[in-house]
Amino acid sequence: MTIAKKGESAVLEKIARHFAHPTSPFARSVRVGIGDDAAILAPRVGYETILTCDWFLEGTHFLRDRHPADSVGWKCLARAVSDVAAMGGVPRCFLLSLALPETHAGRWMDQFLGGLRRAARQFRCGLAGGDTTQQPEILINVTVVGEVRRNRAMLRSGARPGDVLYVSGRLGEAELGLRLLRSGNGLVHKKDRRLRKHLYPEPRLALGRWLAQKRLATAMMDLSDGLSSDLPWLCQASGVGARIEVAGLPLIRVSAEDRNRGISPVQLALHGGDDYELLFAVPRNKAKLIPRSFQGVPLTVIGQITRGAEILLKKQSGGESVLKPGGWDSFLRSIKKD
Amino acid sequence: MTIAKKGESAVLEKIARHFAHPTSPFARSVRVGIGDDAAILAPRVGYETILTCDWFLEGTHFLRDRHPADSVGWKCLARAVSDVAAMGGVPRCFLLSLALPETHAGRWMDQFLGGLRRAARQFRCGLAGGDTTQQPEILINVTVVGEVRRNRAMLRSGARPGDVLYVSGRLGEAELGLRLLRSGNGLVHKKDRRLRKHLYPEPRLALGRWLAQKRLATAMMDLSDGLSSDLPWLCQASGVGARIEVAGLPLIRVSAEDRNRGISPVQLALHGGDDYELLFAVPRNKAKLIPRSFQGVPLTVIGQITRGAEILLKKQSGGESVLKPGGWDSFLRSIKKD
Repeated sequence: MTIAKKGESAVLEKIARHFAHPTSPFARSVRVGIGDDAAILAPRVGYETILTCDWFLEGTHFLRDRHPADSVGWKCLARAVSDVAAMGGVPRCFLLSLALPETHAGRWMDQFLGGLRRAARQFRCGLAGGDTTQQPEILINVTVVGEVRRNRAMLRSGARPGDVLYVSGRLGEAELGLRLLRSGNGLVHKKDRRLRKHLYPEPRLALGRWLAQKRLATAMMDLSDGLSSDLPWLCQASGVGARIEVAGLPLIRVSAEDRNRGISPVQLALHGGDDYELLFAVPRNKAKLIPRSFQGVPLTVIGQITRGAEILLKKQSGGESVLKPGGWDSFLRSIKKD
Repeated sequence: MTIAKKGESAVLEKIARHFAHPTSPFARSVRVGIGDDAAILAPRVGYETILTCDWFLEGTHFLRDRHPADSVGWKCLARAVSDVAAMGGVPRCFLLSLALPETHAGRWMDQFLGGLRRAARQFRCGLAGGDTTQQPEILINVTVVGEVRRNRAMLRSGARPGDVLYVSGRLGEAELGLRLLRSGNGLVHKKDRRLRKHLYPEPRLALGRWLAQKRLATAMMDLSDGLSSDLPWLCQASGVGARIEVAGLPLIRVSAEDRNRGISPVQLALHGGDDYELLFAVPRNKAKLIPRSFQGVPLTVIGQITRGAEILLKKQSGGESVLKPGGWDSFLRSIKKD
């Protein structure tokens, strides 16, 4: 029977079936899940609850005819979980709000739920509930609930002048993948390695948790819109400025062909969105405790926190300029155009 | 400066300004709100966390050119809070995901935030965070976080044969309001009393909380899709059937003119959605403890829980028939058409 005949219950049944086996040990703490008016979670004594939600909308965040449904499922959860990583927390469960056309309630939805389930397993974050409705466009909203030991959450507001600024991973890879995806036609291959970070980002959960447990960072956030757009939020929250050194940026390799087309690794690193790497400030006297890499992910010094409010960019030539936000802004850009 | 020039931060600033003063004493327990990667909530020892989210989409749940923005703001929160009421819980905070076109980021958004803020005050449920983006259509998703004493939540699954079925308030008023709204053109007046329940539903928080505290009900849910569509969920979760008596339904008054147009109070009560009244089952020996009204809201016996799985309707003539779901299904209906 089709969705339009059977209605909402058919969609709910399909979702429940995909998540029938608890996807994580944390699923045990979801005392009431799908099927009641609301979900019930048992909080742990001594922990605080982390709450975050994210849009993932066709046309703005993904393209129906370009992004594999499996990647849409993975990424909608990964980006919300990244906010929990950025607080130094552990995800516990999520709510899925899904609106889609009847044409996509069959195979597309199966593949979507497949990617979502893999992400839920990987991040140990079980499905607790949600809402579904029919719409001409595919609309997704994900709420993730996490936990962190009381008063151990890493906020954006603790950075102090003199702190060393670090970033995890390499910057710009997701943006390069997006450009590649945009330049072609039709559904991209989900195993295309050049698109890996754009299609299947990995929130830095273990790193975020370790930094919070060890109290090594004074401020932290995840890079979702791009360094030049995100860093001002951290600086504003902390009442500080920053100086970034181009020579220190962990750049990605760009082919000669791409360079000839005007693609610059530095520009990708400064303004590319969707990397979901962690940006964090460490007091100078603790910097020696930060390893060069953590579980295979490089940790790189990219600059330092300064007095004042300016964000400066120190070029390889030695000159300095003000770094202007040039990353993702969902009121200025969509995935279809810059 | 316009939103399209200034970007997402202008929208966030406007939201933060509207909610600058804590809207509730519970806002104190939101340790970190808007402006960080995620919100942080301090759970109370001995309490469980209630989680629920709801779509509120233009075209499906409201009409841009018919519904006052103030009502859209009120109702998007009220319906999610109603799920917390249905668990016997108390709302604590909410996350707002808002997508809207630039044309609506001025006056429309101010009125929307005005209605939302009034609802947040009324329900003592503060804004903790959210996500915003630009879209041609107005899309809203609200996550409400509530709390309930451990093991006191009223689920759908506890009803037993012989239990008495109650409903709060009168049924069908919101549906009648929707029909009135549909029959005209242009923006309706937000003070039109006939539309009051459709535009500004009141979740039955005090009643739900009282029933849970006193352990009077065995099962409870809120009526969002209509009695005939919602009751089967409670029966299925409890593994029981039900018999509803038409003579017992708390009907609304319908004008002679509306009756002549084929509008039946019984049909409205059975199938009308959006009332957000509570449906609950009470063991026969506790029924004497249920007053005729609670804080001015009538409580009415509409039938009883039975063995088996059938939901029967006992007519005033004495005959019985199977009650088929005829209420709202967001995969079969939208607000534009039946």
